[in-house]
Amino acid sequence: MRFTEKLDKVWKTNNSLLCVGLDPAPERFPERFSNSSFPVLDFCWEIVKATADYVCAFKPQIAYFSSIGAEGELLELINRIHDQYPLIPVILDAKRGDIGSTAKHYAREAFDRYGADAVTLSPYMGKDSVTPYLEYPDKGAFILCRTSNPGGDDFQMLKANGRPLYQEVAEKVQEWNTTGQLGLVVGATYPHEIEEVRRLVPGLNFLVPGIGAQGGDINAAVKSGINASKTGMVINSSRAVLYASKEEDFAERARDVAKATRDAINQARN
Amino acid sequence: MRFTEKLDKVWKTNNSLLCVGLDPAPERFPERFSNSSFPVLDFCWEIVKATADYVCAFKPQIAYFSSIGAEGELLELINRIHDQYPLIPVILDAKRGDIGSTAKHYAREAFDRYGADAVTLSPYMGKDSVTPYLEYPDKGAFILCRTSNPGGDDFQMLKANGRPLYQEVAEKVQEWNTTGQLGLVVGATYPHEIEEVRRLVPGLNFLVPGIGAQGGDINAAVKSGINASKTGMVINSSRAVLYASKEEDFAERARDVAKATRDAINQARN
Repeated sequence: MRFTEKLDKVWKTNNSLLCVGLDPAPERFPERFSNSSFPVLDFCWEIVKATADYVCAFKPQIAYFSSIGAEGELLELINRIHDQYPLIPVILDAKRGDIGSTAKHYAREAFDRYGADAVTLSPYMGKDSVTPYLEYPDKGAFILCRTSNPGGDDFQMLKANGRPLYQEVAEKVQEWNTTGQLGLVVGATYPHEIEEVRRLVPGLNFLVPGIGAQGGDINAAVKSGINASKTGMVINSSRAVLYASKEEDFAERARDVAKATRDAINQARN
Repeated sequence: MRFTEKLDKVWKTNNSLLCVGLDPAPERFPERFSNSSFPVLDFCWEIVKATADYVCAFKPQIAYFSSIGAEGELLELINRIHDQYPLIPVILDAKRGDIGSTAKHYAREAFDRYGADAVTLSPYMGKDSVTPYLEYPDKGAFILCRTSNPGGDDFQMLKANGRPLYQEVAEKVQEWNTTGQLGLVVGATYPHEIEEVRRLVPGLNFLVPGIGAQGGDINAAVKSGINASKTGMVINSSRAVLYASKEEDFAERARDVAKATRDAINQARN
């Protein structure tokens, strides 16, 4: 099934635009995981099981795995999600960006090796750094447009052709999106910019980080980014869900936060 | 030893500005590596031994390893280079770029896990996506500025504040470079732009891909990018060296190409 079809389906089935980001930092895990042989996998899997009813996607952030050599745990985690929750797509957050011949290898990493349904990519190197990912027709890619971090202003807000660079990126990605596989990363911390991007590219899906620990306002983000079908957004929360509690009730608390966040998103879109 | 000191030293000792890029594609290896248990490591190690006299750095491109799950081979390769050629720095070509909390994990991947001396980074997410790498005082980072690929034009040549975006990136990176750890990636395929960047930031080191298989002219690139000390450049060739021959003489031929390239660079700078 194509990535966008998978998203369309799960948005309805789980009545959710929430994505749970899997950023496993072992020092923030409850005590008992220190005895586990695969703490990262075990922790993430508890979170996945606890929140799967309330999400439209899971988004593992690869740096948290590769910094500690946990590639095997990442692969097993993604395999389990596909097995147990075949409706829920996995977005590998990797923000890759390289010349075409290298991009092919990154595409293999994300799609052949890990079996992710979509990846995140950086736009800086232009079209030939994105097209190799489109050779996988069932897969998707979200290109960085307006990011949620403080440094996002440094270049993304520079005026290029009379408007901020992030808007040039949005329109270029729309131009490259001949197969419907591309979307944009637009941070929840800048609702005004989400609105501008939605106006420019009404048909693209947005991956929206920045709610929860990063402080973005759910209501403003949803109202700015929702499309005509009241979908078109994959709204990510990582730390606020994962580390809702450091005690034995962490999974239950993660579930509560995921449900509450999903509901807050739904209230904003209806 | 600080990365820049290491570079200064090896530029002199090996009388070379050449970097050999390690982009191992097993389908391009000589036949005999198909019988190896660790073909990627074995092939790269033959190349390293054959070319070490003529280089100022080795640059493994991480996508070629991670696409096939060869992280262990990459680690062993870097360890061997450090052991056998302690003068020669290793630049991990990864082009990462993410929010500060994630960038910390990518810095751990490059420096703590793999022990690289420097990394390549993308500028798109701005200052807080770069600063975590500076917390490792002995390490360096090269930020993408003007890339060698066709899509490099898409955003890097857009006029921002009345000049191309890549020039804004160059000056920002100089501003961030309070500790002397930062350099720029400037493609050899655009000598005019190398010259512009050198004029703007006379003190920064450049990592220069694009000669060899990508077609950049050595003479023009060197004359445009060299600094007042006739150094300041790490000029990369990957495929032209690695795949100089697919026969049993591949290492010898790689050595010939590396020597010839080093000499051509030296001729251009003197």
